Amino acid sequence: MNAELLAIGSELLGPLRAETNTLWLTEQLLDAGVSVAARVTVADELALIASALRTALGRAELVIATGGLGPTADDLTREAAAAATGRELHRDPQILERLRERFARYGRVMSETNAKQADVVAGAAPLPNPRGTAPGQRLEVDGRQLFLLPGPPGEMKPMFAAEVLPRLREALGPTAVVRRRVLKIASMPEGEVDQVVAPVYSRFDNPRTTILGSPGQVELHLVAQGGDADEAEAAIARLAAELRQALPGRIYSEDGRDLPAVVLDLLAERGLTVALAESCTGGLLASRLTDLPGSSRVLERGYVTYSNRAKTDELGIAPALLEKVGAVSEAVAAAMAEGARERAKASIGVGITGVAGPDGGTPEKPVGLVFIAIDGAAGSALRRCLFPGSRERIRYQASQYALEMLRRGLLLLPLP
Amino acid sequence: MNAELLAIGSELLGPLRAETNTLWLTEQLLDAGVSVAARVTVADELALIASALRTALGRAELVIATGGLGPTADDLTREAAAAATGRELHRDPQILERLRERFARYGRVMSETNAKQADVVAGAAPLPNPRGTAPGQRLEVDGRQLFLLPGPPGEMKPMFAAEVLPRLREALGPTAVVRRRVLKIASMPEGEVDQVVAPVYSRFDNPRTTILGSPGQVELHLVAQGGDADEAEAAIARLAAELRQALPGRIYSEDGRDLPAVVLDLLAERGLTVALAESCTGGLLASRLTDLPGSSRVLERGYVTYSNRAKTDELGIAPALLEKVGAVSEAVAAAMAEGARERAKASIGVGITGVAGPDGGTPEKPVGLVFIAIDGAAGSALRRCLFPGSRERIRYQASQYALEMLRRGLLLLPLP
Repeated sequence: MNAELLAIGSELLGPLRAETNTLWLTEQLLDAGVSVAARVTVADELALIASALRTALGRAELVIATGGLGPTADDLTREAAAAATGRELHRDPQILERLRERFARYGRVMSETNAKQADVVAGAAPLPNPRGTAPGQRLEVDGRQLFLLPGPPGEMKPMFAAEVLPRLREALGPTAVVRRRVLKIASMPEGEVDQVVAPVYSRFDNPRTTILGSPGQVELHLVAQGGDADEAEAAIARLAAELRQALPGRIYSEDGRDLPAVVLDLLAERGLTVALAESCTGGLLASRLTDLPGSSRVLERGYVTYSNRAKTDELGIAPALLEKVGAVSEAVAAAMAEGARERAKASIGVGITGVAGPDGGTPEKPVGLVFIAIDGAAGSALRRCLFPGSRERIRYQASQYALEMLRRGLLLLPLP
Repeated sequence: MNAELLAIGSELLGPLRAETNTLWLTEQLLDAGVSVAARVTVADELALIASALRTALGRAELVIATGGLGPTADDLTREAAAAATGRELHRDPQILERLRERFARYGRVMSETNAKQADVVAGAAPLPNPRGTAPGQRLEVDGRQLFLLPGPPGEMKPMFAAEVLPRLREALGPTAVVRRRVLKIASMPEGEVDQVVAPVYSRFDNPRTTILGSPGQVELHLVAQGGDADEAEAAIARLAAELRQALPGRIYSEDGRDLPAVVLDLLAERGLTVALAESCTGGLLASRLTDLPGSSRVLERGYVTYSNRAKTDELGIAPALLEKVGAVSEAVAAAMAEGARERAKASIGVGITGVAGPDGGTPEKPVGLVFIAIDGAAGSALRRCLFPGSRERIRYQASQYALEMLRRGLLLLPLP
């Protein structure tokens, strides 16, 4: 089966924004055994969208369009699908009712423009959208499948998983099975990782390996094919085992979890709580941890102590120490971790202080210099780091490094 | 003039790699006054490429295709362009000679497969490629311009600059200047914004307006054309003025700044400091503010008071109050703002408490319920919000709403 993907929206054709829905869909479809022959992005113009839909339906068995299902005047996908297939649009009273209810639930009155989200192409089945107002639609056109999905990824992805994928699987029957695994490594440069793992993965044709680096993180994407799931999984497991050996202790995740989730789980399993004292990261580490459900069991509290006065008031750091060694120093990082742990009566304290830039750097304390301290009953750790890049990157890498220090420390602690 | 961009190559349809040539071309074309109506990526299949070229030539005045000009069997753009235009391919002896010379220069003999790079569509003008072997081609088809450019960005970009851009500028004359402005609105649903602004912007052909909604934010993208920069700017200014009137006080930025930067600047201009007490947002608001250089002048400190004990220890909230009304309540939000302000001796305190979910909701206090309080010398404000969506979206919208409350409150305060 071959597919064509359509992304609809003038905003996707500006220079500002890369279109990501079709990238995600391509990956999902490849996993299901469907290859993507074309990806098209079109502006919010009725004739253009209709022409793109007609072209796609003329050459692909599966067409998935995302976007243009919203309530505004330039949301034209419904009208274009009707035009491309020579069908009528009718307003679905059930969908209209559900839209009204949804608005009422949030204490708002539905505006008249929103009603067009209840328009359905004749013969199409509406696809429920639990995350948003715009339902999707599924049409069969001369034996080809056309799916209209909403543009926001938070709505599109669950709808694809619930409404499109099961139907594809049914239509395709058993095919070659593809399995993927992502191995994640924190706070190690991409070049260093590659130097270690390239001699390993290049001996394997199956799985194929792709390295993806971003600040503070490297991902190894393993993609294996097999006659069945067991065969594909076994191929992945073989390579993963060798990579684990090549990078002892450094692969922190093979199950999709990101570093904050791994650290949170390690803390929760051990019944430990943590208190954070952040200066240059300014709440970023707290925010990354509290973004996860269940973090309240583990994160006792956090201090964003930007000013020296805050460091003294909240963490009990002596003004004389700040005066003598400066706020960006090993001693202050250690005192922050200790102060946070003691004040909060938490199991572990974390202290981060540094120069995030772009201003404030000196020859002795340049932009990117960050001290990170961990303080716990079982011991303490202190690291001096120099991170490259912009303020945002420095802050992110500092939060990532602190998490990796926590992770490696926690692995040494026994489970209760 | 409107353009359509084609990226040719099966490797561009894999899951991991985003296609970047058309993004770059979009920006170049927009700056030259040409808008891009569609971007298409197709696999290396003759029929597919030919169909994409035919479709593009049927609807755009300018078509630029990149890729598929190499020497291998799956480089099919030349053949497809011939098929799409119903013309012949002939081998150009001059290009062939230059190819042979190029190979000789690097001490290699040209293989027979390379000879196909000398094939030219009848009536096409070859475009020299100083950086590689594959020349480009320029065709006029029924008054429309078709350019075939090589895929490698290092060859494509200089060829665009040398061969495409000057011809575009000549064809467009000195009349096409494009100016853009983005108007940003916080914490107002996209549908509501559109209902108010659609009657305004739809009266304007120039600028054209695109609405972009994301959680907690709506952007109006205005793109104007004019004979010169002044004319384009004036067209933008006229529509922007009407939009400002239609949404009094709600457009928080027209200069690219995001909401945290606007709030930070308002605070700094007034010489005010702020202290944050965050429960459900868990440091996200602090992190968004400290992501900006210069935030240390304004953000005195932040408290992430996740537990009740932390609310009592750090902000002085009476355990009896927490017992009586619960941590998620108007009274506790107000006490958090007050406590943060007093403890930190800051000008303004902010308190945020709510149910971010996915667990912890009750019928009286459902997931998404958030109380936000601002406390300052000039007065205080308190709002009850119910945000839809995931934990991440609820947290983000709460931080955005708090910033918007701060902004609107600060606008009422006189400058020193």
